[in-house]
Amino acid sequence: MTARLLAAALLLSACLPACAQHANLRDHGIAIGVLPTGQWNAITDVPGVTVGQKTLVRGDDVRTGVTAILPHPGNIFRDKVPAAVYVGNGFGKLAGSTQVRELGNIETPIVLTNTLSVPAAADALIDYTFSFADNGDVRSVNPVVGETNDGYVNDIRGRHVSRQDVLDAIASARGGAVEQGNVGAGTGTMAFGFKGGIGTSSRKLPASLGGYTVGALAQTNFGGVLSIDGVPVGKALGKYYMSDELNDSPDGSCMIVIATDAPLDARNLERLAKRAMLGLGRTGGIASNGSGDYVIAFSSNESVRVAYESDSDLQQTSVLRNDAMSPLFIAAIESTEEAILNSLFQADTMTGRDGHVATALPVDRVLSILEQHGREVSRPAPDATAPAQ
Amino acid sequence: MTARLLAAALLLSACLPACAQHANLRDHGIAIGVLPTGQWNAITDVPGVTVGQKTLVRGDDVRTGVTAILPHPGNIFRDKVPAAVYVGNGFGKLAGSTQVRELGNIETPIVLTNTLSVPAAADALIDYTFSFADNGDVRSVNPVVGETNDGYVNDIRGRHVSRQDVLDAIASARGGAVEQGNVGAGTGTMAFGFKGGIGTSSRKLPASLGGYTVGALAQTNFGGVLSIDGVPVGKALGKYYMSDELNDSPDGSCMIVIATDAPLDARNLERLAKRAMLGLGRTGGIASNGSGDYVIAFSSNESVRVAYESDSDLQQTSVLRNDAMSPLFIAAIESTEEAILNSLFQADTMTGRDGHVATALPVDRVLSILEQHGREVSRPAPDATAPAQ
Amino acid sequence: MTARLLAAALLLSACLPACAQHANLRDHGIAIGVLPTGQWNAITDVPGVTVGQKTLVRGDDVRTGVTAILPHPGNIFRDKVPAAVYVGNGFGKLAGSTQVRELGNIETPIVLTNTLSVPAAADALIDYTFSFADNGDVRSVNPVVGETNDGYVNDIRGRHVSRQDVLDAIASARGGAVEQGNVGAGTGTMAFGFKGGIGTSSRKLPASLGGYTVGALAQTNFGGVLSIDGVPVGKALGKYYMSDELNDSPDGSCMIVIATDAPLDARNLERLAKRAMLGLGRTGGIASNGSGDYVIAFSSNESVRVAYESDSDLQQTSVLRNDAMSPLFIAAIESTEEAILNSLFQADTMTGRDGHVATALPVDRVLSILEQHGREVSRPAPDATAPAQ
Amino acid sequence: MTARLLAAALLLSACLPACAQHANLRDHGIAIGVLPTGQWNAITDVPGVTVGQKTLVRGDDVRTGVTAILPHPGNIFRDKVPAAVYVGNGFGKLAGSTQVRELGNIETPIVLTNTLSVPAAADALIDYTFSFADNGDVRSVNPVVGETNDGYVNDIRGRHVSRQDVLDAIASARGGAVEQGNVGAGTGTMAFGFKGGIGTSSRKLPASLGGYTVGALAQTNFGGVLSIDGVPVGKALGKYYMSDELNDSPDGSCMIVIATDAPLDARNLERLAKRAMLGLGRTGGIASNGSGDYVIAFSSNESVRVAYESDSDLQQTSVLRNDAMSPLFIAAIESTEEAILNSLFQADTMTGRDGHVATALPVDRVLSILEQHGREVSRPAPDATAPAQ
Repeated sequence: MTARLLAAALLLSACLPACAQHANLRDHGIAIGVLPTGQWNAITDVPGVTVGQKTLVRGDDVRTGVTAILPHPGNIFRDKVPAAVYVGNGFGKLAGSTQVRELGNIETPIVLTNTLSVPAAADALIDYTFSFADNGDVRSVNPVVGETNDGYVNDIRGRHVSRQDVLDAIASARGGAVEQGNVGAGTGTMAFGFKGGIGTSSRKLPASLGGYTVGALAQTNFGGVLSIDGVPVGKALGKYYMSDELNDSPDGSCMIVIATDAPLDARNLERLAKRAMLGLGRTGGIASNGSGDYVIAFSSNESVRVAYESDSDLQQTSVLRNDAMSPLFIAAIESTEEAILNSLFQADTMTGRDGHVATALPVDRVLSILEQHGREVSRPAPDATAPAQ
Repeated sequence: MTARLLAAALLLSACLPACAQHANLRDHGIAIGVLPTGQWNAITDVPGVTVGQKTLVRGDDVRTGVTAILPHPGNIFRDKVPAAVYVGNGFGKLAGSTQVRELGNIETPIVLTNTLSVPAAADALIDYTFSFADNGDVRSVNPVVGETNDGYVNDIRGRHVSRQDVLDAIASARGGAVEQGNVGAGTGTMAFGFKGGIGTSSRKLPASLGGYTVGALAQTNFGGVLSIDGVPVGKALGKYYMSDELNDSPDGSCMIVIATDAPLDARNLERLAKRAMLGLGRTGGIASNGSGDYVIAFSSNESVRVAYESDSDLQQTSVLRNDAMSPLFIAAIESTEEAILNSLFQADTMTGRDGHVATALPVDRVLSILEQHGREVSRPAPDATAPAQ
Repeated sequence: MTARLLAAALLLSACLPACAQHANLRDHGIAIGVLPTGQWNAITDVPGVTVGQKTLVRGDDVRTGVTAILPHPGNIFRDKVPAAVYVGNGFGKLAGSTQVRELGNIETPIVLTNTLSVPAAADALIDYTFSFADNGDVRSVNPVVGETNDGYVNDIRGRHVSRQDVLDAIASARGGAVEQGNVGAGTGTMAFGFKGGIGTSSRKLPASLGGYTVGALAQTNFGGVLSIDGVPVGKALGKYYMSDELNDSPDGSCMIVIATDAPLDARNLERLAKRAMLGLGRTGGIASNGSGDYVIAFSSNESVRVAYESDSDLQQTSVLRNDAMSPLFIAAIESTEEAILNSLFQADTMTGRDGHVATALPVDRVLSILEQHGREVSRPAPDATAPAQ
Repeated sequence: MTARLLAAALLLSACLPACAQHANLRDHGIAIGVLPTGQWNAITDVPGVTVGQKTLVRGDDVRTGVTAILPHPGNIFRDKVPAAVYVGNGFGKLAGSTQVRELGNIETPIVLTNTLSVPAAADALIDYTFSFADNGDVRSVNPVVGETNDGYVNDIRGRHVSRQDVLDAIASARGGAVEQGNVGAGTGTMAFGFKGGIGTSSRKLPASLGGYTVGALAQTNFGGVLSIDGVPVGKALGKYYMSDELNDSPDGSCMIVIATDAPLDARNLERLAKRAMLGLGRTGGIASNGSGDYVIAFSSNESVRVAYESDSDLQQTSVLRNDAMSPLFIAAIESTEEAILNSLFQADTMTGRDGHVATALPVDRVLSILEQHGREVSRPAPDATAPAQ
């Protein structure tokens, strides 16, 4: 059993029966970019990083949820991680960015949810921080919450995400395979006119370049002209922004989280974050006017963590030099591109509010288009990667 | 009866019996800067701007509240105002800044509260926006909420501000005199080691320069070396940052809201916002590491409002040229300086959480120090400006 | 004779005998994106915009030059254009960005040259500004100069670009076809391991969306994993960053100029500029650590020009609303992608300093690779688009 | 002989006979702020930092010059220093800021000169860098040049600063006392309607806070409402912006260089730089529309230097934690305020272009005003601090 098959098997065992995972783009033989992935092809390949999700599908119109990314398994408030936020397009309600910029670190899990549930999620992150016994004196918390707008299929005005939902998502965080598609904060999102969702991917540098891992997780809810591994799939499907002038709004948003174990300071994390937008661009995203496209990047490397309290005014760190950044840049671009595409390949058709339907990407047709463009694709038997529904 | 006496009388009638307003700095004969004030010496001198506050003083340890600034009396979501946020020091949890930066406007009232009640306030601003009948299709709202940390006298971990408190503050908004000191979001704040609070001031340009008004409102909760009209009061009182090395932490925060009726676009509003920090510097503030010092500036001028929906892709505007900005800059500096000082002059000693006491500025002693430094001061009889408590 | 053939013919007549233009990517049947081009598929399709170039090829090691973009034919200092600079990656020496950011406009032609000749070019722009009779009282000029490093084939340390060369480039500016490839500031540059240079392209919106034109001009000198219309050409050629780990440095830089006749203010021009980086990402660029990737965007629309002197403090403008920006965004992305690719298709092999050779893109092989990836390509007879050398 | 007298004596011996130094503000008994100065009350108190100047006073109308600040005595290109640039108001032509922001360091001396001589100075910094034998392979240099506009008394359009002048200034750099007033880049500048120039000051933290030094050097050429140690001198002299509405333009610019030996990374240096503007605000500056107010901050601490080449991809550093920054912030504010004031106290009346006269601050009158405002001032005998001219 190869590592990839093992990974797929573990993934399936992890999410049964709640989800029906599909094959990733890569399982179809399409490898984005030039670098290899980590074991799980997920943000969780970055040592210490875990992901937890809560999916809310209730009645006819609740189609939303929460995705939480934990930079490390400890008390994040007391062991903050260097971080940066890059704003690709700021039509969004991200909480926490100014303190991250000023101090260069993040002190809570990163939570993704829907636009109007940012306050609930922020409140929950305060609850979460207070829940640690040794945070008893804490009177200031900077919750980091991202969002996209799932209001097409979700009753977003109902603000159905509760603080407990957020705490549940955090509590469920684990490493290994990450559920993708219609889960967590991606339950109700759309991308390129199809059902989007949560997607993830990772890249691993060669040992000669440090052997660092970069992982990306995306909550996809945006538009443009879909391109898969460079193939103009959106055009081929006749479904793209500016076709017949404006028949698919490109608006929406994309939240991207980039994790790495490379020991980076906040300045270089900001540079890394910026590259994720190039990955989004490669999928055909245009960062439209109505899009809230944000990238949050952090380093999970223990040596660069920032203690809440310290006996010394000085922090000893060992950080990567500027001129060692380029391999990480390409890793961020590739993992973002693939994370976004995975979200589409993993999503199922979703019906929700007012009968609105978000149709899944027609994978078979897409694979044929890819073949017509010189790609060799594989069509794994459903039972190899996805259980019968 | 002079305009100023009239203003004072109206102010008193407005806030009785809930508050006991004191004399402003200016009532003591100290006029900051070189420009005249507007009628109320308040942010409400800017046409259309109103302020509402809710003060929470309950039991031994609830000492907090809400201050809401409304850019105009209409549906702000449908008639957005050009705006900018400048981050003086970003150790804070301000909500909404990235969208303001991207789109150049604000679509909700500006709410100030305590650090941990930002989520509640943001949620309330969504409620507020939804409460307008013609916002029935709105699925995305960018709440703008600022905060400072009143945790010294307030049980901030209790998060006592409710969504209803925020709605109450907004509903109570009106023009004219603004309550200052221990009210609203300033109920539990401290500045320069003394009781801080809410303060406001305004400046009016000569007609030859457009006759525009600039108003500032500050929620003061920061430190440094207090300087009043340039007089080193903090040093004279022996209470300042770095005295005996560190006996008064300069940390805390300062939220500053700048309003003007000058027709400015977002770029020039950002420049205007930046100047407020020079006013803060003039009071002896240092924007310490732990301070969340933010300035939100907006224009209430009708001609630059941004309609939510429009028949045209073009917006006709008439905006001030760059080279007409300098008078507004000095107006922002002066009104901010005076607003901060007013917050100190208007605040009363407050006892709260764990018996912590925030002592009011010793106004009499301060006036004597001012006199020793060549200022002529007046000591209005208490009943002229402040009713007996 | 079709419009495209006419354009090609005019282009040839314009640059003979100094240059030997090749077919653009589009002449090979590859149309990037979904929007149509303007008449010349060049930045000069934007009304009022002209381009002038001076190519310096002397002896064994002078391989450099100057490209000047003029926003309009008048006195730019007295009629400034709204503008913005976006820094994709700031390892570069761009002159003028802070004033453009502060004031929102550009007051000189935009000059591109090599890294170490920025001072000479800036000095020349001061000369140029002083050369206008009605600029006799001007004592402050903000030259805007971009650069990339052509030091592989050019004796860059010799700083061979003179002020007169810059003035010559400006004086030669004209509309219509733009020379591409090894000309002007692109004379000695490299991209993706091949000879880069100057490239340009444009897009035109449908009349229903305003009919605006967006033009891009790129000076390409960067690396990554070359992708042409999404086809992984770099991988197919075995020449890409991270192949055999690091055999082609991705460093270098890319200067991109975006012009439009849409009436945009500086804020929306900054947003437009940001999108150009998505176009760069689509070509396989990674904005490597050593890259100076800058985008300068301006509007040539007369109605938004900023007069140096004015009788009024107010400027009447009619600017595009935020929600009309997305079509321009996609236009900027597509025109940038195509401009970069054109620079490669138009460049010839160049031998220079120390015998270094920058090899032209092997167009025939590339076309075959494109065919293998499902593209229909045409191979125009050399004499149709490029004279014999 | 006290340390201060010794310092004064050494200062005199250093600059005789070229200059006629006056008493600093502090020599008159006015101590700005609460922290003590370093030995020289100059930026050169920061270990390793040296300053060199070249003053150009020729004929009737050449009144300009160059001031160079060297972060350390070695090859700065090979041992770069962490640095940041903060733009207080960007109506200026500062060279080099984007690379400093991206990479977090400075690789040349910092040169100040007049607005139109920035290109010459940038070219000279390239010359300077090339002049080191071990920079023989360098093909990219990021010159950092600041400027203000001395065009009132100087024939600025003549661009009289030569590359050799810049090299001379750099070559003359030394530690110890720094000439102030009408020297170097301050030869022809004006501030608050009086003759400005070069000023410097420093602050030293107590050993318990690390014992770090912060030094400021300012090239003053701006306006507002002059305040000296908080005393409204401008108002008392009847010479201020907005008096009689607009009788003194506040335009001009202020370049501020902040040096420290505290081991700071670029992010915290940016925060430090920002505080200098609060110091400018305390002098009555308003950062007017036409002002180019820039702050360049760097750390000279050896442990944070960035080697051009390194065997390792990792850099070991020991940097100050965020929560140790506040004492440095107040040091930057105070030293900037005092540096600006020193420039005024040290400047002499200057007559230049077209007979324009920049009148020196009337020190005697100013001292009387200070006395009227409760300050004790001393009037050192001229020979104690300034030789007869």
